[in-house]
Amino acid sequence: MNLILLESSEIDDRGIARLRDVRARHIHDVLRATVGTAVRIGIVDGPIGVGTIERIDTDHTQLVCVFAGDAPPPRPAVDLLLALPRPKVLRRLWPHLAALGVGRVMLTNAARVERNYFDSHYVRPEGFRPLLIEGLQQARDTLVPQVTVHRQLRKLVEDELDGLCPETVRLVADPAATQSIRETLATSAQVQDRRVLLAIGPEGGWNAFERQLLRDHGFLEVSLGPRTLATTTACIALVTLVHDALNQ
Amino acid sequence: MNLILLESSEIDDRGIARLRDVRARHIHDVLRATVGTAVRIGIVDGPIGVGTIERIDTDHTQLVCVFAGDAPPPRPAVDLLLALPRPKVLRRLWPHLAALGVGRVMLTNAARVERNYFDSHYVRPEGFRPLLIEGLQQARDTLVPQVTVHRQLRKLVEDELDGLCPETVRLVADPAATQSIRETLATSAQVQDRRVLLAIGPEGGWNAFERQLLRDHGFLEVSLGPRTLATTTACIALVTLVHDALNQ
Repeated sequence: MNLILLESSEIDDRGIARLRDVRARHIHDVLRATVGTAVRIGIVDGPIGVGTIERIDTDHTQLVCVFAGDAPPPRPAVDLLLALPRPKVLRRLWPHLAALGVGRVMLTNAARVERNYFDSHYVRPEGFRPLLIEGLQQARDTLVPQVTVHRQLRKLVEDELDGLCPETVRLVADPAATQSIRETLATSAQVQDRRVLLAIGPEGGWNAFERQLLRDHGFLEVSLGPRTLATTTACIALVTLVHDALNQ
Repeated sequence: MNLILLESSEIDDRGIARLRDVRARHIHDVLRATVGTAVRIGIVDGPIGVGTIERIDTDHTQLVCVFAGDAPPPRPAVDLLLALPRPKVLRRLWPHLAALGVGRVMLTNAARVERNYFDSHYVRPEGFRPLLIEGLQQARDTLVPQVTVHRQLRKLVEDELDGLCPETVRLVADPAATQSIRETLATSAQVQDRRVLLAIGPEGGWNAFERQLLRDHGFLEVSLGPRTLATTTACIALVTLVHDALNQ
């Protein structure tokens, strides 16, 4: 927890926040803060600032919060179109994704996604939001990735994607591809000013229809190298490589 | 399990292997193999080949194994010097590392590593070897990373590193660094023919003494960007970026 995230409703008119949960215990036990200590804080989807400890005991902390402005950090320039992984994998993936920095995550059905994955707790805001907050607190960000759930890949790609993710370079990881993410982005016009939308398939991959659908809607196939990676490893590696290529 | 790994002792003189464990169930339940089906197999630290199913039922498979030669795949060109993470993190990290491809992992003490982490089951071969095999089977590799455990970082760096990892470009991830891995390797002589040794510190980072020790022994500081990542995310991201930079 490198940043303590607060909901704006937790801060009163005088800028005072009172914490009684895992954050209070972190400030007391891990940061070993005392009265007067300044800790890094942020408002969810808002600015980053400083909280000065006014009162503290083992499970209760009172902070005076000061923010330099109203602006949140910039939204990460990578969006994900992710074939819904199985619940255990999804649960572990959320903090990694929020920490690495993604603007939007579209969870989608695909031929090789099992229908009951959509019943998972981690597909619902009350399931994934605490895990996203955990990742943001690790990475010192405040912007919660926007998550949407799509039961039909075709409807998402044909009807909704242009609205959800306008002006993005579209990439899809494909074992048969030969060009790296960096090479592909280097030859893609005006990538500096744009966002990247990255499609990641299910374990076992997209089927032929899905690959053609993505190709027909502008997704460029990129390679992750010769090794076949599981969903978690692949997601972290791919998001890392897109950020790296965008920042060069 | 994209490759079924066998110990050489499991294959008899006539090239027959009989499996009764999780691999047999995988072949039956997931691959849905029948008599005559060919599955990808490998010998641990040996060659990759093909196993043809000769007999099969729910928990017993008999394979005829054929290998094209004796040579294992090439050893991955990345070695890790890793401050020992806490047991739960280490357990999850092993399959990721084997799947991404690392030649050697040196687990080391550091000021911010708790002593009792060395008592973990996952620091011992019987704990980590099955997890490395799991990662290799995912990535279709056979070469088990070489793992060594070092109780004294200073002794490791001063006395042992030149022998364990000769001819490597040495990098250390540092939040204060400004150069990326790719920039640093691009200006490092003859990197194409050499290996990279990557040092990754504990949660909370190396202390000043450790940073100086690494610097004095040729480690170049590289940046992973502005976001502070947890050990698992950081390890996967860093190994990915080194592989990517070496393969450009």
